Amino acid sequence: MIFGSFSNMAAGSQPLAVALLSILTGVLSFPLGQETKHTSCHATKPNMLNVHLVPHTHDDVGWLKTVDQYYYGDRNDIQHAGVQYILDSVVDQLLKNPDRRFIYVETAFFYRWWKQQSSSMQQTVKQLVNEGRLEFVNGGWCMSDEATTHYSAVIDQMTMGLRFLNETFGPCGRPRVAWHIDPFGHAREHASMFAQMGYDGFFFGRLDYQDRARRMIDKEQELLWRASDSLTPPMADLFTGILPNGYNPPQGFCWDQSCDDPPIRDDPDLEDYNVDDVVNRFLTIASAQAAVYKTNHIIMTMGSDFQYENANLWYKNLDKLIHYVNAQQANGIKVNVLYSTPSCYLQELHRANLTWSLKTDDFFPYADDAHDFWTGYFTSRPALKRYERISNSNLQTCNQLEVLGGPVSRNGHFGEGDSQTMMKAMAVAQHHDAVSGTEKQHVANDYARRLANGWQHCQVVVSNSLAALSGSSAQRIYCDNLNISVCPLTESSKKFSVNVYNPLARPVTWPVRLPVNGTAYTVSDAKGKAVDCQVVPVSRATQEVRRNWGFAVNELVFQVQAPPLGYSTYSVSLVKDGPPPTSTKHRAPTVIQNKFLQVTFNPDTGLLSSLSNLETKQEYNASDGNNSQSDQPSGAYIFRPNSSTPFIISQTAKTETVQNSVVQEVRQWFAPWVSQVVRLYADSRALELEWTVGPLPIDDSLGKEVITRLDTSIKTSEIFYTDSNGREVLQRKKDFRPTWHLKQSEPIAGNYYPINSRAFIKDDVDQLTVVTDRSQGGGSIHNGSLEIMLHRRLLYDDVRGVGEPLNETSNIFPEGLVVRGRLLLSLDPPPTAADTHRPLAQEMVLQPLLTFTDGNLNPHTQLEFSGLQAALPPAVHLLTLTQWDKDSVLLRLEHQFQSWESKVNSQPVTINLQKLFSTLEVLGMSELNLSANQWKDEMIRFDWKPQTGKKPLLKTFEDPSVWEVTLRPMEIRTFLLRVSLR
Amino acid sequence: MIFGSFSNMAAGSQPLAVALLSILTGVLSFPLGQETKHTSCHATKPNMLNVHLVPHTHDDVGWLKTVDQYYYGDRNDIQHAGVQYILDSVVDQLLKNPDRRFIYVETAFFYRWWKQQSSSMQQTVKQLVNEGRLEFVNGGWCMSDEATTHYSAVIDQMTMGLRFLNETFGPCGRPRVAWHIDPFGHAREHASMFAQMGYDGFFFGRLDYQDRARRMIDKEQELLWRASDSLTPPMADLFTGILPNGYNPPQGFCWDQSCDDPPIRDDPDLEDYNVDDVVNRFLTIASAQAAVYKTNHIIMTMGSDFQYENANLWYKNLDKLIHYVNAQQANGIKVNVLYSTPSCYLQELHRANLTWSLKTDDFFPYADDAHDFWTGYFTSRPALKRYERISNSNLQTCNQLEVLGGPVSRNGHFGEGDSQTMMKAMAVAQHHDAVSGTEKQHVANDYARRLANGWQHCQVVVSNSLAALSGSSAQRIYCDNLNISVCPLTESSKKFSVNVYNPLARPVTWPVRLPVNGTAYTVSDAKGKAVDCQVVPVSRATQEVRRNWGFAVNELVFQVQAPPLGYSTYSVSLVKDGPPPTSTKHRAPTVIQNKFLQVTFNPDTGLLSSLSNLETKQEYNASDGNNSQSDQPSGAYIFRPNSSTPFIISQTAKTETVQNSVVQEVRQWFAPWVSQVVRLYADSRALELEWTVGPLPIDDSLGKEVITRLDTSIKTSEIFYTDSNGREVLQRKKDFRPTWHLKQSEPIAGNYYPINSRAFIKDDVDQLTVVTDRSQGGGSIHNGSLEIMLHRRLLYDDVRGVGEPLNETSNIFPEGLVVRGRLLLSLDPPPTAADTHRPLAQEMVLQPLLTFTDGNLNPHTQLEFSGLQAALPPAVHLLTLTQWDKDSVLLRLEHQFQSWESKVNSQPVTINLQKLFSTLEVLGMSELNLSANQWKDEMIRFDWKPQTGKKPLLKTFEDPSVWEVTLRPMEIRTFLLRVSLR
Repeated sequence: MIFGSFSNMAAGSQPLAVALLSILTGVLSFPLGQETKHTSCHATKPNMLNVHLVPHTHDDVGWLKTVDQYYYGDRNDIQHAGVQYILDSVVDQLLKNPDRRFIYVETAFFYRWWKQQSSSMQQTVKQLVNEGRLEFVNGGWCMSDEATTHYSAVIDQMTMGLRFLNETFGPCGRPRVAWHIDPFGHAREHASMFAQMGYDGFFFGRLDYQDRARRMIDKEQELLWRASDSLTPPMADLFTGILPNGYNPPQGFCWDQSCDDPPIRDDPDLEDYNVDDVVNRFLTIASAQAAVYKTNHIIMTMGSDFQYENANLWYKNLDKLIHYVNAQQANGIKVNVLYSTPSCYLQELHRANLTWSLKTDDFFPYADDAHDFWTGYFTSRPALKRYERISNSNLQTCNQLEVLGGPVSRNGHFGEGDSQTMMKAMAVAQHHDAVSGTEKQHVANDYARRLANGWQHCQVVVSNSLAALSGSSAQRIYCDNLNISVCPLTESSKKFSVNVYNPLARPVTWPVRLPVNGTAYTVSDAKGKAVDCQVVPVSRATQEVRRNWGFAVNELVFQVQAPPLGYSTYSVSLVKDGPPPTSTKHRAPTVIQNKFLQVTFNPDTGLLSSLSNLETKQEYNASDGNNSQSDQPSGAYIFRPNSSTPFIISQTAKTETVQNSVVQEVRQWFAPWVSQVVRLYADSRALELEWTVGPLPIDDSLGKEVITRLDTSIKTSEIFYTDSNGREVLQRKKDFRPTWHLKQSEPIAGNYYPINSRAFIKDDVDQLTVVTDRSQGGGSIHNGSLEIMLHRRLLYDDVRGVGEPLNETSNIFPEGLVVRGRLLLSLDPPPTAADTHRPLAQEMVLQPLLTFTDGNLNPHTQLEFSGLQAALPPAVHLLTLTQWDKDSVLLRLEHQFQSWESKVNSQPVTINLQKLFSTLEVLGMSELNLSANQWKDEMIRFDWKPQTGKKPLLKTFEDPSVWEVTLRPMEIRTFLLRVSLR
Repeated sequence: MIFGSFSNMAAGSQPLAVALLSILTGVLSFPLGQETKHTSCHATKPNMLNVHLVPHTHDDVGWLKTVDQYYYGDRNDIQHAGVQYILDSVVDQLLKNPDRRFIYVETAFFYRWWKQQSSSMQQTVKQLVNEGRLEFVNGGWCMSDEATTHYSAVIDQMTMGLRFLNETFGPCGRPRVAWHIDPFGHAREHASMFAQMGYDGFFFGRLDYQDRARRMIDKEQELLWRASDSLTPPMADLFTGILPNGYNPPQGFCWDQSCDDPPIRDDPDLEDYNVDDVVNRFLTIASAQAAVYKTNHIIMTMGSDFQYENANLWYKNLDKLIHYVNAQQANGIKVNVLYSTPSCYLQELHRANLTWSLKTDDFFPYADDAHDFWTGYFTSRPALKRYERISNSNLQTCNQLEVLGGPVSRNGHFGEGDSQTMMKAMAVAQHHDAVSGTEKQHVANDYARRLANGWQHCQVVVSNSLAALSGSSAQRIYCDNLNISVCPLTESSKKFSVNVYNPLARPVTWPVRLPVNGTAYTVSDAKGKAVDCQVVPVSRATQEVRRNWGFAVNELVFQVQAPPLGYSTYSVSLVKDGPPPTSTKHRAPTVIQNKFLQVTFNPDTGLLSSLSNLETKQEYNASDGNNSQSDQPSGAYIFRPNSSTPFIISQTAKTETVQNSVVQEVRQWFAPWVSQVVRLYADSRALELEWTVGPLPIDDSLGKEVITRLDTSIKTSEIFYTDSNGREVLQRKKDFRPTWHLKQSEPIAGNYYPINSRAFIKDDVDQLTVVTDRSQGGGSIHNGSLEIMLHRRLLYDDVRGVGEPLNETSNIFPEGLVVRGRLLLSLDPPPTAADTHRPLAQEMVLQPLLTFTDGNLNPHTQLEFSGLQAALPPAVHLLTLTQWDKDSVLLRLEHQFQSWESKVNSQPVTINLQKLFSTLEVLGMSELNLSANQWKDEMIRFDWKPQTGKKPLLKTFEDPSVWEVTLRPMEIRTFLLRVSLR
């Protein structure tokens, strides 16, 4: 589908003409409608068992090698894999026999390949796509991780991949099936997003081994997933199929160059003619598989990681397999084998017109054996996880400023910039061996390098845009290391200004901490009003972490405010002979407090004692795999402590205290490698715990996993709550799974869940919510307790392929990695808790961007700006604002409350799109599906009947010609807006 | 070239018509003449260094896997290799770019592939061959071993492969270049054969490391090999090129799926753009290579073992390499890279019109480092080596009887038989990891199984033919285990007859030993005349070896005679109450003698003391690689004893003696695993040493290599002589190589040479010649001494890829293999020694075939037959007589004497072909080249100028219309005869 019309839009502009031409081409080549590609499916036989063979390759967008190494087939000494050759080879082999089929998944690779092809090859591939011989499934830039990703970045990467397919191939290139065959557990929010992206169904390969066993018996490996408790069914209903062999071929039938299974030897003149043996083995396997699925159709995934580099091996043998098995039909064998695709298989399941069991929870945690819980990667590589999250924030700012600043953002005073580089870097970082932390060290480095490079490109956009919006072309300085108090400008300058850009659609108040070497400063806001500021000494922990990258002795602390989708500018001047900085006291106070919170400490231990009853730091020693129950060690994927009782790092903390009008903080020192600052800003509703952990000591030859545990008097009944991909919250119960009778074998690791942005515990009176700054693993092992894993360092590989222990050493950090992060704690009555944690978490995700200019500002500089006419209502989050093409922008508005969580905010909200922006005139709008690759009103999905409940009515959408759009709880609506700068 | 005309031949028969049609097709498709294919060579640049890139694969016809496993890609767990896919892939890739080239070598594989292709694919491949894009080189059924093969079997396998190419592709499919890139040393006789097969040149990859070093300095890696001291130059002159990197690509430029070198990464948008680096590295390598060759053309072999299974990887990167390197010509770089083939490269060398250094010796032994002499495989797997040799004898008999018996041989009284199965089995057995003994055990078993299966097919031909020739359809029994006295028929029958077929063109006298359980027999010959026969007890050694396969207590011994190319039939009857058998005496006699020889024994030691002065049995203990000079152990390829002084197994032998009118023998027992019979038959000119060795004990954890050493008083001056592939004899000198100054580092292994059929030592008075029954390694380490390695068993792999120690255990022989063989010793004055050893060796190679029928023969049975009108003169050996097609046979006649070795026999001999056969009428004849794939008078080869000597005149051949053909010393002449049975 090429976007070619806008409602309320003047026709005749150049881009529109091009777009209409595309539509015409499309109409000639492929009829519209959802059944388009399905006409290419091979006929099946209703009275037989139909075996759908699905040739496929699974191409990790980085894992043991970097994405570009995988593309080219470089570093084959690490792993033999070259995607360029896979696509070369598959296209060749598809052309040899029109019966053959192939599916391709990862657009990050396909895009690289496509742009190197001749136009005649491109035409050939289009033909294959049009004829359904090459089918795209999933189609995002990558196959994202589900446990450690944030929905914002997932939607972006899916949008980028699907857009490329849409613009290259039209409707025949639009995937109908989501395909997450490898991720290590499955998030409900992913299913919800896939439903809203228009997928007809979803297939995956990995689930808990007990869950699978139960589902096999009950024939529930195919089911209907109702993936939201707030969206009206079937908006978030997704047919879900669990593949029979992970994503591998059945045993003995792998014919890739990377496999050793015997080929079909059908020349009777040569040794070892084996056709009869192959046919018999295949029939046995097919029959066993049919026994655990519902219909007379079964699917077999014929491929695996980076397979089909020499597709001839596969297809030559598959051709023979199909031929020889189907030849047995003449002997009365009722089995029909065919080349197929997931969408052709799905179509047959749909035609079966059955009811399917309904699932409303998710597929976490994932265990592939009794002691093999893949819950370690929820925390693996915490530094990368944070860098990915802050990069998303920066990218959204870059996207917004590209729109708000106009064309000059991309080519302006500071040169040429772009947001594409960072969008691509963020997209590959969503891969299930990227932000998950399960890649090799050099690959983790490559993801970080890409993000850094992307940010360089974005900085030009941001600088250009801010120059245009402010009227000042003064050089703009970026300080990306403020978390360790490093910023050469502020450390040395006597006068500078700070631009605070706020990417949220609401005003924000934000604490700023700048490394300085003076002892007293004045700060004034955009209106010239003085701002309360304080200077405090840099902590010892920070000095140790930053090493010789910075030399500031003090930090200047003040709170700033920035308008919605806009900025405010603060001026800072050194005061000569000013007062000395706030001194630290070497004893914890009994209480720190602001108008919202009061925090009490135990003066004997130095530990926090109220807000929650007790807070402490603990560690698990990792299993080295050497114990009697199982030889599984903890590793990048797997979490397996060697004891269910954590080791308490220190029963007491050494403390220092800082207290002034801006901030009150207690600096706790537990060990040389664990410290924390408990911090309360003057206007904050949340208590900040800034933790600094590492390098984890390994001189005892034990890997370590450091947790922070909050033990409270809240009566949790072994229940706690975690978010799914940063959106809806799911209830978790200790040693319990909603859909099967759990036999718990790992009391800690088996109770860990991914925490993407928040977790909470509650009873009727209190709710303690912890908002995280990155994805982490956590659990509630004891009543009233909530623990979060902060950092991990392991000495053994966990034998899931990565082949390296998660040790995270490098030239720069030979002694191991130090990681710093923040947890925000809020304590509220449960009925209003969401009103606090929803905006709090969004502030953590999309945090203000500080940029600096040295000296005095040009007097004509516009010191404050907002892109919105007014702040959006509290329930509405502006998820996406990004340039789509020359004259249009993509806008996503989101209702950020679940239907049950807030009396005030869990209500429908209506927004007028035409009155949204302050500087953009909206000339036209069209609503799209979530992934922006289909008009919303043309998105017609298969309807599936659950075993329980009546079939819901299809939801009707508002007429998109009306500017007023209503958002219901947890709804995300996606619009293409035709705009011009006012 | 299709054979379509015969001289003196009546036209009009059906096969001729078909043949003429083929010619016409040929003429239309491809112009005749040697430059045919060379027009397809890419243009070169005379003022630049031209780098010929030759894409190739080296496909072992069995090694770590069997030939069929390699073809299909079965057992990829052992080694990833599937030839079917290689050919699929290469053809695909050649079609993608007409500039690309490929060469293919092993017809055993190509044939398997071809017959599975559709006719349209066959047409496509023909087109590629016609356009020179796919070029066959070498083109035999396999790439034969050079050290352990017999010329008879090599010529056969080359003929079979080249015939297939000829009949499939015509002249464009005829290889112009011989290509032995992998064999472990190079035989002069192979070069001579290649010259006579019409090859323009020869390339190989392996030679002694010292030899290469010297040749690099002197730019003599390309040379002219004068490969015969008897044939008139340039009959056996062969241009020979030594490839620069074995047969591998230069370092860093291997782009196969099996390699890890970095691909060319030429997309500047992706990581690690490396075009400049690749170009610079390539130019450096090309320049270094050009410095050690003579012309401004160099060759690079871009491929290796089983490469190009996914040819896209290679070609995609080679396309880029050529593009980017040649792009540098615009910057003044004088290097031109092109796709090429060995024949295109050779053509450029020829055009260079230079003179080339002349070589007359050979390339044995091959060492790749100071302690790494590949001389072990001369003896490795002695049982397989013997089985291969006896199989050749049986195949020649089968071929001859197929001709002599007429069409009924293939489909007669005993059903359908064929010689093709055995021809193919023999052809693959010539491979350089087959008869060489350097394959894995299961592959050795496969070669043996193929030979046994081939012999089953041939037995039907032989039975049918003998039934036709004799008029008796009595069941014919084959006893293949007479060497261990096993033959169920003779063990139990009271009356049976023995048919003795003699495949030589001369009458033969042959000792027969049959296992029997009676004590007295009468034997009568074809004329009913009684034959002297004796019964002797089965020796203890034989009883141990045969285990429970046979139960005979005695052996019936008598001498038979058989006519040329014919048989004689002997009748045997048990005599009831006959005399007891010859008893054995437990003491050695002083002398055994017949009219030719007298053999004296030392009564104290039991050892042979005259004929030669001293004879003993010794062993080398194999190096386990654990010594200070080198860690190279002895293995399948490598011979490396742990001491230069062999360990004497026993200073004395226990003896038994048998003496009667037919045979006198001394049975010597040295150890439980070494025994020998010294045997003299009544009419023999040679003394037989029948050795039985094994299982070699390994309880001392030492591998062992058993030699027999003949120490004589002959004054050898450290010189001895060995044959080359069973034909011409070369002089060897201790610690000496004719073409470079040898630095000897392995005093034993470095002085070993292959002995295919004979070795001798001599002085002015005496020549002691040893004729062997198989290929063995041997040397003359001391003056007057000649040693031959009989058997070897090793406990370490020698790290040349086979990955197994040469231990030769199996279910049947868990304790290790026992091997039995024969050496024939003749002692003559040097001027007449060849008159004895030439026919003696041929009798050993083509030995009579004994077949048996039980009971009385039909009285009408023809008991004697000869296919020749008369025996051929002593100098002439009938090398080949085999059915070619329905009405024609292939005949090879050979002068079997070197020009210098016999006063009587080293003279030209003339034979009248029309008067040759007794039962075949010769209707027409045409002379062919040695490999029978070109008319002799159309075989025009490149002429090459040696650095010394004037250019010889081209030899002119007799008018082939004359029936009389003359053979000069060492000449082999090949004829296609149109025949009919008289």
